Amino acid sequence: MKLDREKTAIVLIEPQNDFLTPGGTMYKYIAEQLEKRDTINHLVRLLEGARGKVKIIYVPFQAFKPGFPELKPGGPGTEGLRGIEMEMEADWGTGAWVEGTPGPEIIDPLTPQDGDIIVRGKLTLDAFHSTALNYILRANEIEHVAMAGFHTNWCVEATARSAYDLGFRVMVIKDCTATDTDREQEYAEEIIFPRIGKVITADEFLSAIS
Amino acid sequence: MKLDREKTAIVLIEPQNDFLTPGGTMYKYIAEQLEKRDTINHLVRLLEGARGKVKIIYVPFQAFKPGFPELKPGGPGTEGLRGIEMEMEADWGTGAWVEGTPGPEIIDPLTPQDGDIIVRGKLTLDAFHSTALNYILRANEIEHVAMAGFHTNWCVEATARSAYDLGFRVMVIKDCTATDTDREQEYAEEIIFPRIGKVITADEFLSAIS
Amino acid sequence: MKLDREKTAIVLIEPQNDFLTPGGTMYKYIAEQLEKRDTINHLVRLLEGARGKVKIIYVPFQAFKPGFPELKPGGPGTEGLRGIEMEMEADWGTGAWVEGTPGPEIIDPLTPQDGDIIVRGKLTLDAFHSTALNYILRANEIEHVAMAGFHTNWCVEATARSAYDLGFRVMVIKDCTATDTDREQEYAEEIIFPRIGKVITADEFLSAIS
Amino acid sequence: MKLDREKTAIVLIEPQNDFLTPGGTMYKYIAEQLEKRDTINHLVRLLEGARGKVKIIYVPFQAFKPGFPELKPGGPGTEGLRGIEMEMEADWGTGAWVEGTPGPEIIDPLTPQDGDIIVRGKLTLDAFHSTALNYILRANEIEHVAMAGFHTNWCVEATARSAYDLGFRVMVIKDCTATDTDREQEYAEEIIFPRIGKVITADEFLSAIS
Repeated sequence: MKLDREKTAIVLIEPQNDFLTPGGTMYKYIAEQLEKRDTINHLVRLLEGARGKVKIIYVPFQAFKPGFPELKPGGPGTEGLRGIEMEMEADWGTGAWVEGTPGPEIIDPLTPQDGDIIVRGKLTLDAFHSTALNYILRANEIEHVAMAGFHTNWCVEATARSAYDLGFRVMVIKDCTATDTDREQEYAEEIIFPRIGKVITADEFLSAIS
Repeated sequence: MKLDREKTAIVLIEPQNDFLTPGGTMYKYIAEQLEKRDTINHLVRLLEGARGKVKIIYVPFQAFKPGFPELKPGGPGTEGLRGIEMEMEADWGTGAWVEGTPGPEIIDPLTPQDGDIIVRGKLTLDAFHSTALNYILRANEIEHVAMAGFHTNWCVEATARSAYDLGFRVMVIKDCTATDTDREQEYAEEIIFPRIGKVITADEFLSAIS
Repeated sequence: MKLDREKTAIVLIEPQNDFLTPGGTMYKYIAEQLEKRDTINHLVRLLEGARGKVKIIYVPFQAFKPGFPELKPGGPGTEGLRGIEMEMEADWGTGAWVEGTPGPEIIDPLTPQDGDIIVRGKLTLDAFHSTALNYILRANEIEHVAMAGFHTNWCVEATARSAYDLGFRVMVIKDCTATDTDREQEYAEEIIFPRIGKVITADEFLSAIS
Repeated sequence: MKLDREKTAIVLIEPQNDFLTPGGTMYKYIAEQLEKRDTINHLVRLLEGARGKVKIIYVPFQAFKPGFPELKPGGPGTEGLRGIEMEMEADWGTGAWVEGTPGPEIIDPLTPQDGDIIVRGKLTLDAFHSTALNYILRANEIEHVAMAGFHTNWCVEATARSAYDLGFRVMVIKDCTATDTDREQEYAEEIIFPRIGKVITADEFLSAIS
């Protein structure tokens, strides 16, 4: 596989402390998979190898103010996963993605570098519903979207599904993703991703843009 | 559970021959699950019980012209599931959703009735990316979206995920959905749907609007 | 100006009887401009000259059932222009875009031909909010979107503005558009369109794809 | 007119230095209208009177990195208004909305207060194409969207048009908007806004929520 560098971008979803660092609200659920799959190291190698060759687009989750004044109590924004995350405990307090805590910060080994693009404002599972991701991809004439980040079957998958529907050619870099369980990871890799795109490794991606 | 009828709608995804009738392009893959789960009969009972009480919104897949002139050969629209479906064989010829074949017709037992709404134009997995579904739901001041139809883990799930991101309160009526395998059905019911909404049966839904 | 034919499409908005034929609900408001600007003849020449060279995408407004059961009385869908159109009188009855009347039919001189694409389901002013227009454009790897149709400052402009925001390169073929008054037409041509794209004539477009 | 406070929000578009403060890239074009219409003072009064009664949602334009690495040179993101703004001169350098300059900062008299919501990431004319605005409005069960800010006929109008298409009830608070010329302001107030919503003053809005 060869990819046209000018038409290819990596989209990195939510590489932030609340997911990836001990003490983060959701770390304990994903920790085993992160270690087993060595996801952070794969991501470090992916970004180091890809920088200067293809666009790297970070899509962090946007911080809420303490107390979540952005979401009406009992409103539809407090249902499901979002509501669960609002009640979770981090070492630094209650609730995920709270401004002023380490939770929303991007983890050190994946700090964005000059030339990387950071898309702001993500508040939905699917990045396309709350950010300029489509605009940024199209402004850069991107055709091939290579998905990475967290969680495989939630925000990565939701965004990958929409990328397919929006007319991009989709890849998922499987060893640069993780989620809470083998069942979820395997299901996404085996059932969903192959029918909306290609499932590849970081090495395969780097080889395709070399 | 009680639901405000005025704020509740059933969204029925793709109840069409290519999926649900012997000879349809994709029937043979879903047939066993349809029978085992008795999905069509559940849907018939759901619609009969709900008509006149809540809005029923059909979202059929839109027919392509023979030969798929709408999709550039080799373009991103021919990748993944769409490309696979373009090559599938029905008793009435090659390719799913072809205008002039029985494939895109809604199956007889689920024929829309007066007062039902039919949303046209669906060409993407997620109905919100290619139809007026959001507009119709909001024009009717709907808050609770009850998903049904096919396939559980593809168009139903993609549309349910987006409904969550668009600020609806989501339900999935599990016995009114089906897909190709137990693995996919169970995964969607156990892992995804409970975190974006409620997973209920047709009887539970009918009871909630009674 | 030269345009790459493979990357260019004409998007023709709502060339239907309710706007363009005597007796249609909104004909009497636009009739003077249609004649003065000779819009239909320009459109006929545009399509004849462009067929076989670039994709031609029709985006008709979707018919409502008689009585508009799709829109809750008093709901937000009955406000503004939509509400006004629901009350308008055609020779064939009350209300625009009613199924079973001539209103939603495409006018004879602009009948779609083999190879043209018809995008279904438009219920909003901006076609991107209720149709697969983005999907169809991207599935065909279109970069240059040439807007035509009705009304210049309503659905054409709303769709053109979104095309710009979605990362297309926009043109408006000015002599293939019309609206109710000189003031609106001139404002759109002079103020809005030049800042989101190019404003050209049918002849200039045909020359650019020759 | 009475408005249900719980279902009403003010959406304030781009109250930032590049538009509103001497030295900003676009200040000199809008300065005369700002003074003549006393827009900033109207906005101050609007926000002071509305705080604690209805949600106030800020939608600032998102800063670019110096040199605009987010937008491919010559790509579709550099066409039209965006391209023009990239070349404009501020007292603090070339280009609008540059991170590290005063341009993207919200002006002092309109500094957000506790309880106000700030939606991040706006890069398109229509806020709905690049932010979580729809999600935030729906998460707060908002039905009535009162638009204010800059420029009347660009980002305010584009966002108001989409709000209409997304099923909100739209108001434009006319004395809390401004643009470059009388022609544009009057056209938007007289032609467009009355057909997608209500055109009111700050005093009328405050009276409606009192």
